[in-house]
Amino acid sequence: MDAPDPFESASDETRGEMMRATYEALRTHGYSDLTIQRIGDEFPKSKSLIYQHYDGKDDLLVAFLEFLLERFKADVPSDDDFEDARDHLLTLVEQPLAESNDEHVDFVGAMTALRGQAPYDEAYWEQFADTDAFFREHVADIVRDGIEQGVFREVDPEQTAAFISATIDGAQSQHVTTGSEEAVDAVRRELTDYVERRLVVDGEDDS
Amino acid sequence: MDAPDPFESASDETRGEMMRATYEALRTHGYSDLTIQRIGDEFPKSKSLIYQHYDGKDDLLVAFLEFLLERFKADVPSDDDFEDARDHLLTLVEQPLAESNDEHVDFVGAMTALRGQAPYDEAYWEQFADTDAFFREHVADIVRDGIEQGVFREVDPEQTAAFISATIDGAQSQHVTTGSEEAVDAVRRELTDYVERRLVVDGEDDS
Repeated sequence: MDAPDPFESASDETRGEMMRATYEALRTHGYSDLTIQRIGDEFPKSKSLIYQHYDGKDDLLVAFLEFLLERFKADVPSDDDFEDARDHLLTLVEQPLAESNDEHVDFVGAMTALRGQAPYDEAYWEQFADTDAFFREHVADIVRDGIEQGVFREVDPEQTAAFISATIDGAQSQHVTTGSEEAVDAVRRELTDYVERRLVVDGEDDS
Repeated sequence: MDAPDPFESASDETRGEMMRATYEALRTHGYSDLTIQRIGDEFPKSKSLIYQHYDGKDDLLVAFLEFLLERFKADVPSDDDFEDARDHLLTLVEQPLAESNDEHVDFVGAMTALRGQAPYDEAYWEQFADTDAFFREHVADIVRDGIEQGVFREVDPEQTAAFISATIDGAQSQHVTTGSEEAVDAVRRELTDYVERRLVVDGEDDS
C-alpha cells in the first residue's frame, strides 16, 4: 500500500535495477506512452539485458507487479510491532490514506494505470487478483487476532477485510485521479471511526 | 454508477451514435488497443463525421465521459421516488454493487481503464474530478435530507459521502480487475450494514 522504497534491498541487483527502471519510466510516462526503450533509458546497464529477460513492456510490467507483491509480503510488519490488533489495524488503515507526498502519489497513480489494464489483459488481472486477495487476507488475519485478543467484536473477518480493502483502494484511486486531498482525508477519518465504532469492543457509538 | 443503457435517449442522434460507437469499441478493445479507426468501425454513419468533431481518441473519450456525466445527472432519481432518505441511500449503495451482468462489468471495466489515464492526462483528470465531486455531493444531499427527516443521525454529510463513494468505487474497480464476486458481495453487505448501524436512527448496533 505504501511506497517507502520498494527497491532498496533487492537481493538480485540487476533485477532490482530493472524494476526500478520500470518504476521510474512508468512514473514519468504513464502506461500508454511507456515503451520498453523508455524503461531502458532509466536502466544503468546494457538495455539488451532487458530484452533477454522480457518479451515486451507488458511482460515487464507484470513482473514489476509480481516484484512489488513479493516485497509487500516480505515487509508486512509482525503483530509484535504493535500494542494489539487495534493498534495494528488503525496503523494499516491510516498510513496509505495519510501519505500525500509526490513519491506516494506517483506510485499509486502508476498502480491505478496498471489496474486499468486488468479488465483487458489476463496477466494483469491475475496479478491484481493475487495482490487484492493477499491484502484482504492480511486484514482478515488482524481482525481475527483482535477477536481472539478480546479487543474486537465478533464481526465477520472476511467481510470486514473486503470492506476496508475496497475503501482504501477507492480512496487512493480517487485521490490520484482527481487530486482531492479533502476527500481522501475525509475517508481516512471515517474509516478510522468505523474501526473504532464497529470493531473495537466498548468503542464509542451514538445509540 | 449503473449502466442500463446510457445512449438510449440521446437528443442529438449523431452524437449519441458516436458515443455508442466509442463505448462499443472501448468494451471490445480496451483503452490501449483502441484507435479512432476502431471507433469508426462501430459508427453507422460516415467516419469523417468523427474526425470533424474530435482531434483523436483521447479527445473523443473525454467527450464520452462528459456525455456519461450529463446522462448520470439527468437520470438521478428524485427523492419522491423513495419512501425516505434511508430507502434512497440503501438503493443507491446496493445497486452498483449488486449488478454482475456482462454489460455492467464491461462498463465499469471501461471506466477503470479510463480512470487509469487520469494521473497522466489533465483532461481525464478534470472529468473524473467533476464526476466524483458530483456523486459525493449527491450522496451528501441524501444524507442531509435524512438528518432533516429525523431518519439519520447527525453525522457529517460530506465525510459520510466521501466514505461511501470511495468504498463503492474501490469495490467496483476491484471487481472488474480481479473478478472476485465474493469480495464485491461482502463489501455490499458491509456497506449496507454501515448505513443501517452508523446512519439510521435506532439502527441496530453491538454495544
